[in-house]
Formats: sequence, C-alpha cells, structure tokens
Amino acid sequence: MKVPGVLLGSIDLISSSASYSIRELVVTLRNDKLVEELVNALTEIPGVQVNSVVDRVLMKHVGGKIEVSPKYPVQRQDDLSVIYTPGVAGVSKVIAGDPDLAYSFTMKNNTVAIVTDGTAVLGLGNIGPEAALPVMEGKSVLFKKFAGIDAIPVCLNVHEPQQIIDVVAAIAPAFGGINLEDISAPRCFEIEAKLSEILDIPVFHDDQHGTAIVVLAGLINALKVVNKRITDVKLVICGAGAAGVAITKILLDAGARHIVVCDRDGALARDNLQQASSMRWVAEHTNEQCVHGSVKDVIEGADVFIGVSGPGVLNRDDVTKMAEHPVVFALANPDPEIVPEEIYDIAAVIATGRSDYPNQINNALVFPGIFRGALDCHAKEINEQMYLAAANTLANLIPVDQLNKENIIPSLFNQDVVSVMAKAIIGEAKSTGVVKNIAAQRCGGIVVKYGN
Amino acid sequence: MKVPGVLLGSIDLISSSASYSIRELVVTLRNDKLVEELVNALTEIPGVQVNSVVDRVLMKHVGGKIEVSPKYPVQRQDDLSVIYTPGVAGVSKVIAGDPDLAYSFTMKNNTVAIVTDGTAVLGLGNIGPEAALPVMEGKSVLFKKFAGIDAIPVCLNVHEPQQIIDVVAAIAPAFGGINLEDISAPRCFEIEAKLSEILDIPVFHDDQHGTAIVVLAGLINALKVVNKRITDVKLVICGAGAAGVAITKILLDAGARHIVVCDRDGALARDNLQQASSMRWVAEHTNEQCVHGSVKDVIEGADVFIGVSGPGVLNRDDVTKMAEHPVVFALANPDPEIVPEEIYDIAAVIATGRSDYPNQINNALVFPGIFRGALDCHAKEINEQMYLAAANTLANLIPVDQLNKENIIPSLFNQDVVSVMAKAIIGEAKSTGVVKNIAAQRCGGIVVKYGN
Repeated sequence: MKVPGVLLGSIDLISSSASYSIRELVVTLRNDKLVEELVNALTEIPGVQVNSVVDRVLMKHVGGKIEVSPKYPVQRQDDLSVIYTPGVAGVSKVIAGDPDLAYSFTMKNNTVAIVTDGTAVLGLGNIGPEAALPVMEGKSVLFKKFAGIDAIPVCLNVHEPQQIIDVVAAIAPAFGGINLEDISAPRCFEIEAKLSEILDIPVFHDDQHGTAIVVLAGLINALKVVNKRITDVKLVICGAGAAGVAITKILLDAGARHIVVCDRDGALARDNLQQASSMRWVAEHTNEQCVHGSVKDVIEGADVFIGVSGPGVLNRDDVTKMAEHPVVFALANPDPEIVPEEIYDIAAVIATGRSDYPNQINNALVFPGIFRGALDCHAKEINEQMYLAAANTLANLIPVDQLNKENIIPSLFNQDVVSVMAKAIIGEAKSTGVVKNIAAQRCGGIVVKYGN
Repeated sequence: MKVPGVLLGSIDLISSSASYSIRELVVTLRNDKLVEELVNALTEIPGVQVNSVVDRVLMKHVGGKIEVSPKYPVQRQDDLSVIYTPGVAGVSKVIAGDPDLAYSFTMKNNTVAIVTDGTAVLGLGNIGPEAALPVMEGKSVLFKKFAGIDAIPVCLNVHEPQQIIDVVAAIAPAFGGINLEDISAPRCFEIEAKLSEILDIPVFHDDQHGTAIVVLAGLINALKVVNKRITDVKLVICGAGAAGVAITKILLDAGARHIVVCDRDGALARDNLQQASSMRWVAEHTNEQCVHGSVKDVIEGADVFIGVSGPGVLNRDDVTKMAEHPVVFALANPDPEIVPEEIYDIAAVIATGRSDYPNQINNALVFPGIFRGALDCHAKEINEQMYLAAANTLANLIPVDQLNKENIIPSLFNQDVVSVMAKAIIGEAKSTGVVKNIAAQRCGGIVVKYGN
C-alpha cells in the first residue's frame, strides 16, 4: 500500500488479544483531503479495520491552550485575607490615591491584551471572533514563552472601527499594552491611530509593524549579502493590506526611494488614486515614475520582490526578469507567492514565512521583544523610531561573518532576540521621550509608610 | 515599651556585625495609624534605629497576583507549528464552521470574565478601575483555587449602563461566563438584566446573587437553630443596594412573607415610592403593613436582622427589642452593623462577613461552585431556581447533628462545597431547560474526520 503525500510516523500497540490488536498510527499528511484516501487504502488491506481518525492538532487544542493562575500558592485563611478581603482594601486605597501605582501592585505591569475582531485571521480571512480565539491563544503562548509576558485574548464581535476603539479604550485600565491582531485593512489603520492617540499605553498592530520590522531586518541583511544599498534598489511590494502598507512606510523611513506597491488591480500610482486613505498615502509616496500594470509588468528590473499577498503571484519567468542578484521575499502563508524550489538557482536570497525553508520572516521574532521593552520602561507608545531600532537590532544579531543567502534572520529560538530587542526599545523610548515617569514608584524594595 | 493594638510576630536577624545588628520585626496592627506610634516608640529606645517600614500586604501584591501561562510546555519548532501557525489554522477552520466548537478547542470552556467599573469596591465605594484591579485579581485567585476556573479581570473606565453592556457584549465570544462585580446600584440591575437577555452565556452579579444565596443558606440553618419557619418570621433588611435588593428577592422566593427593607432614609414603603426602579420593586413587594421609620424603629419585634449597610447601625438596645431568640446577620465589611461581642449573651445566632468570628457569610462559598456547574453543563443562564438550589445545597452541607449557633454555614475550606454546589447547579440547569445542546461535540475522545 502506498498513498503519496502520507508520511508514516510511530506505530504504537494499544491493546492486543488472541483475535485482534489495536494499533495507533501517527501520520503526517501533505493536505487534509488525503485522510479519506488513506482510510480507504488501509481498509482495503484484508483484516484491517479503521476504528477512528483523530487529528493531532485538534487534540492538542482540547480545553484551550492557556490558563490563568495565582502566582503564589493560597493555602490558609491568612493567605486569603492578604490577597482578598480585608487586606486587599489597603492596596486598592493606595492605587486609588495614585492610579499609576497599578503598575506596581497589579498585573498591569506585565499584561498585554491581544485584540482581534476575527476579520483577517492568518490566511483564512473573516472567520469571526470565536474561530480567531485559537490563534490568539497561540499568540499568548508565544508572548509567555519568549518574553514572559501575560497576554490575554480579547475577541470582539463588533467590527466598526469606532466600536472597536471604544471597547479597547474601555478595557485598557488593566493592561500595560495593546496588541492589535488580525483586524482587516483599511479599518486597522484608523483603529490603531486613534487608540494610540487616546491611550497612554503602547498600541501595536502586529500585522503591520511586526511584519514590517522583521521584513526590514531581513532586507538589511539580504542587501548586505548581495552588496546593494537600500537607497539604490528598486523594490516591488505585492499586497497593499496592513502588512504591505506598513512595510512600505518602514522601508521609506529606512531610506528606500524606489518602491512600487501592487494590489490585485496592479501598481498603485498617484494618477489613479484609490478610495482607502492608506492606499492613497502609498500611491502618493511611492512609484515616483508613475508606472502602471500588474506585478508581472512592474517586476522587470526590480532588485527586491516582497510578497505579502497570496500563492502563485510570481513564476520563474518573472524572477528571471528581475535585476541581477534578485532578492525574493515570498511571505504569503502557508503558500508563498512562489515556491523556493522554483528559483533556488536564480535568486540570490529567498525568504518565506515558513519554518520549513531557510530565512523564516516571522513576526514572533519581533512582538515579544518589543512589548518586553515597552512594558519594562512603561513606554506610552511604540513609535517609528522604535520600529527602525528594532529592525536594525534584529538584523545585527547575525554576525557579519555568518551572513549568507540562507542565514539573513535569527532563529526564533535564538535566546538573545528578546533581551537585545527589549534593550533597544527601552533606549529608543528614552531618547524619544515616551517613557512614563513612574520609575521611582516601581521600586523593588517597597518602603511604604502605610496609612499616611 | 508597650503600644496598645500592636501584636508582635516573628523577630528575624537579617545581619549582624560588631557595631550593630539588623533585625526584621513582623507586627500586626489594629489600625493603620498605629504605624507612626510604633515607629516613634521604637525610636525612643536607646540604640534602636528604624531603617524601613514595609507593608506585608503591599509586598505580596508587587507585580500582581495572577499570570497567564501555556497549559503545555512549548519547546521545539514542531510544538509551535501545532499551537500556532500553520497548525492552528485547522482548528480555526473547524470553529468557523461551528462557533460552538469554541467550547471544545479554546479557553472559552473554562474561562470567566470578572467585570467591574470600580464604582462599588468592597467598602471603599467608587475608587476607579485601576484601584479595583487588585480585588478582581484576588477574585481570580479564588476562582482558580476553589473551582479550577480561569478568571480574567476586566476593569472598565466607562460607567453608563449602556456602555458597560456594549463592552461586555463585544468581548463575550472568548468567555464561558460573565461575573459582574462591584458595580454600584442601581446601574448593576439594568446591566445584569440586559446582558442576561443579550448573551447566551451565564451572567452573574456576585454582589447581588452570591450574597443573596449565602445569606439564604445561613438563614435556613439559623432558623433551624431557633426552630422558626421562614414563612412566619419577621425580617428587617438594612441596606437597599445590590445586596439588599437581591437578598429581598431570594427571601421572597424562599417563602418569606414579612420583610421590611430600610435604607438610610428608613423603611421602604409602597406609599412613599423611590425613584430607582429596584427600590420601587422592593417597596411594592415588602412591608405589607406599610410601616415607617428608621431601622431602630422597625426592628421592634423582628425575628431576623440582616445588615448589608455600614458599621454602627445597630446597638445592644435595638437587639433587646427584637423577638425572642433573635437572629442577627451583621454583614457590613470590614466593620459590621454591630460588633458580635456586644450581643453574644442576647442573640440566638450571630453571623458576620468576617473570618475572625464564627458564621462567616462569604460569597466565596458560592460563586466558584455556581460557575463550575454552569460552565460544566454549558448553561445559557444562571436563574432564580438555581439560586434557590444553591442556597439549599449550601445549607444542607452542615449535617443537622452538627448545627448550632456557631456553625450555620460551611467553611470556605470545606472541600465538598464546590463539587456539591456544581452538581446542584447542573441538575437545576437541566430541569429548567437552559443547557446548551453541545454536549455531544465536547467529547473526551475527539473523533474528527478532518477536512470534510
């Protein structure tokens, strides 16, 4: 028996008797549809019966992936009187007198809300707040694993920008930061901008800035590999959603001068302005030669392609039309704009969003360190200077002598990423003057003349 | 040296040299103001210098009391691909097809939001959302400790009922239940009623129903001790806020017929209706003889006094005017309506809200079991029949042969409370038809034909 696309893993004996044995087969499938084919093939073997098919990923999700727990054990009545009434009243009084002391004596100091309305989840689109929840829980796991941050999923069933703004502003007091996630463009721009204005805690839309930062970091190193300068190269960005717009902005801030951004209707140009203000902004600030046409047209002569769109946008012929030593970032997930195998021999550097190819451009390299830094210094915002500092810091984590076409970005499991990034963020927060002045009150050794 | 009201605990040697020793003294003070007196008294001792005064309760609150953690360790790239992209996309797809499956594969199944706007916190009143946070975190600790429930503080800086309703409705998708907390009356009534109507998850205002349930439980047993029947006794309730109104309702549901409710202006009566609809309702459904006057007037001849107001409302003389074998529930916290010592010899049963007297009437006996049951059976609501069942169950946990004037209510550390209460709630949810029909999908051994 052979079913192409099925990879056999372990075979465990579950139970055995004189008449039959039950075995558990662990298999990896190239795609979902192979389940049926596999079950049919197994059933055709004489004496074999398939009892049940269980999805390993679903199994891991039963009951959810995160929990909320006391930081200290609570055993006796006396413990309760400290952490709850009557003792807690004293803590509440202290904070009522100075709400910033919530940073000292509550979860606020280390807690981020991961806010979504479920409209742009992974590659799945608008799947609703309940279906977005496993992704937000996964993100919460990454926050804790990589940065020790407590992150709470907030899945909204309202979708108007003003409604989302109102809800997030209302729940803000318990949080030290807001991570916006998987909210579709163009609403995400307005929501982030207004929340940043209203709130005195950092607001960070990861799909925009997390992606932009890690793309710039990768690009800085890719250009070192091909020995080109960001001010000189011609870049084509495919995708004008949250990620595409933010990438455009950070590249301009980093000195790029020749960018053409395409959406599914072709190159954005200033003589053909779109309705969404984010796309108008892009058209007005890029494509100085006002070229028109599809990605396949404008890619001719480009040094860099950055795809944040969908599978199959590019083919091998398109890449052959690019400038010498082309850099291809095919970041659509899970299926990239072009499969690396197609262009290994002609592209100078290839990056994707996937963990099974070299050069994974992954937001998870960014948001943990950004928020670790912002929380630790009580930053009021995460600003553009911080984005640039984060990208440069991330790029510099690869020593020059280790740079090569398959090593332009650190691994997620590089233990330095978060601490180095956090340090950079704190430095930039201080130099841009966005640090809250409550450092003196945080104090490790609390000395409080209680009741005065 | 002697400072009255200061209780000396441990004395630890921190460091010692030829010229001086540093010692840590742990002391318990009767009130906050004694700190200065104690420091002065210590400083007057020749050779003694006070280096610092540290508050033990504040110390325990540094950095907050709860954390959000992965339920399973995440070590390798493969783990990430299961709990986050690309694996999680399959889980999201399954839930997008049937949002109720969020109960199976996300935190929703075991997670409650503790929602407050900080307007009626403990005895402190309107102290704002930040200052309420330590209390909500404490409550989260109790939820986990007693019922294994993940509870997330949601502290709102909006206060209009409709705003609070909108925010809670918007964030509901990730939660299996909503615990409203410390929201001032009369807004809390409208907020709870509307949210219960809108949402298909249970909404429970603990200050109302948690208090009402534990009061009724205590009263059932107190009346057994004095051998009176709830239908016969004359009850005076002092306080017409969230707790007072809810206690009135549950006592009426439990069969009480002679209740007079007082607020600070005296007895609520149907010939003198208040503006707040909750108080109008009380006036119309109690005080059938339309008596007037203050608590001290109407308490004459009463069998039961239930205080949910403030300290010093009652004195010994007032209790002497009550009927034979008076039952006094002086529940104001931390300072009761009358101190038990004043009436030990004349009251038949005394209960307070405090842990340092017998018969502590504590909501924490109720909300963990109520939510454990409601979550486990996917109840759509927590209704009045469930309140009554919870009260009776709690009362019955004290075996008749152990009932006495100092043992009318179980201890918080009685291990049976939550499981027995949860069972009662599930039974009542089924018999009142409020159980969501998703039991078949919850399944321990998930069998999913993936991708169909």
